[in-house]
Amino acid sequence: MPSTGRTLAYRDGRTPLTGVLHRDEAQRGPRPGILLVHGGAGLDDHAREQAQRWAALGYVVLACDMYGDGVAGDRQRIMDCVTALRDDPAMLLRRTRAGLDALRDCPDTDGRFAAVGFCFGGMAALSLARSGEGIAGAVSIHGSLTTPAPARPHAVRAKVLVCHGASDPHVPAADVASFAREMEDAHADWQLVMYGGAVHGFTHRHARPGAVPGVAYDERADGRSFADASRFLAETFGLPAA
Amino acid sequence: MPSTGRTLAYRDGRTPLTGVLHRDEAQRGPRPGILLVHGGAGLDDHAREQAQRWAALGYVVLACDMYGDGVAGDRQRIMDCVTALRDDPAMLLRRTRAGLDALRDCPDTDGRFAAVGFCFGGMAALSLARSGEGIAGAVSIHGSLTTPAPARPHAVRAKVLVCHGASDPHVPAADVASFAREMEDAHADWQLVMYGGAVHGFTHRHARPGAVPGVAYDERADGRSFADASRFLAETFGLPAA
Repeated sequence: MPSTGRTLAYRDGRTPLTGVLHRDEAQRGPRPGILLVHGGAGLDDHAREQAQRWAALGYVVLACDMYGDGVAGDRQRIMDCVTALRDDPAMLLRRTRAGLDALRDCPDTDGRFAAVGFCFGGMAALSLARSGEGIAGAVSIHGSLTTPAPARPHAVRAKVLVCHGASDPHVPAADVASFAREMEDAHADWQLVMYGGAVHGFTHRHARPGAVPGVAYDERADGRSFADASRFLAETFGLPAA
Repeated sequence: MPSTGRTLAYRDGRTPLTGVLHRDEAQRGPRPGILLVHGGAGLDDHAREQAQRWAALGYVVLACDMYGDGVAGDRQRIMDCVTALRDDPAMLLRRTRAGLDALRDCPDTDGRFAAVGFCFGGMAALSLARSGEGIAGAVSIHGSLTTPAPARPHAVRAKVLVCHGASDPHVPAADVASFAREMEDAHADWQLVMYGGAVHGFTHRHARPGAVPGVAYDERADGRSFADASRFLAETFGLPAA
């Protein structure tokens, strides 16, 4: 892929964070920015590859860092971070916004932004939408849908797309139903696509089959969700479809 | 729209049926056929308009007749028909297949078919898929998802797309969840899209607001579901996107 990343240091308060900025150098001029939020494992190869995938479509993409230096690769510290962020919606939102602010400061964006997150990162992307942040779109891909801080009526300004594996054991039908009620009660502009045959983590093409219960790559759902999400963002930004 | 319909008489056993065949006369050569199945009211203006919409994309479209002559417009006879077909999956399937066979006999189809149904007709389209009928695709738009005759494992040969209004009071979250389980247990290739803000009948642009409880036109969901369904069928048939 044509995009090469460069590290971008930024902070959430006292916490130093290190993201990776991806952009297609062959493309010129300002374009929308995408905040890409990694899954539970932290800013890993999966997140970098997804960032490259989006950068190849012409977006300026910041693969942000939700954990801080030295956490990725340390199982216990990851678990502590995920738990702390999941249980404290204000902290999750602040940490996600720190990435968005870092992206806003990057040259070549046109002032329009979306957030795309995977697994844990889907929850982060939705936290921006729920908070009323002025981004154009929020996309959750095999992400968690429940929250202790549901959206208030008319608060959601971003258009929302959820890409969901129909047999995801970590996001059961009850979570889908309660998310739907939340978004309806909030009068949000939202859509959710269920992909038959897919479980959790269906975009992880390097996932070792059986290594993590309930997680498996699904080429069909991976391709469909990327197509759906890229059309959704192109429409949201008024760009020609890829 | 460029398509003009011509009536097509056919039969389900002793029951005479009268469909309307739509095709864009400006387009030449064989192309896939779509069986378009009306909603509960019978073969009405809504079904004709939808048939024209699909014919404008280049398909040969039969807006079929599930009730028989003289039923449409007679509320009591409609209710009797809907109830009889809903409660007897074998009769529903036979009646739907009669339309498909009539379409198969039409010139200019290339031997490939899909079914697209609305409300009650969504159930009919899904009945073909559940039965293992050799059509390429089945699309249900604000359709009923429950059935007394669920698909058996590996029986479904058609790719399936369900377009669902998130606040459809006639198709509650429990129906979506049980449909998902049915399709997963059958190992079907299926997708379901939930459209936020939409209730039942969201494609009925002539629906009088408030006239039927739980039914309302939703321009956004109408446009999105048509775009999603037309992309789905184009991909299913290997055609360029419209």
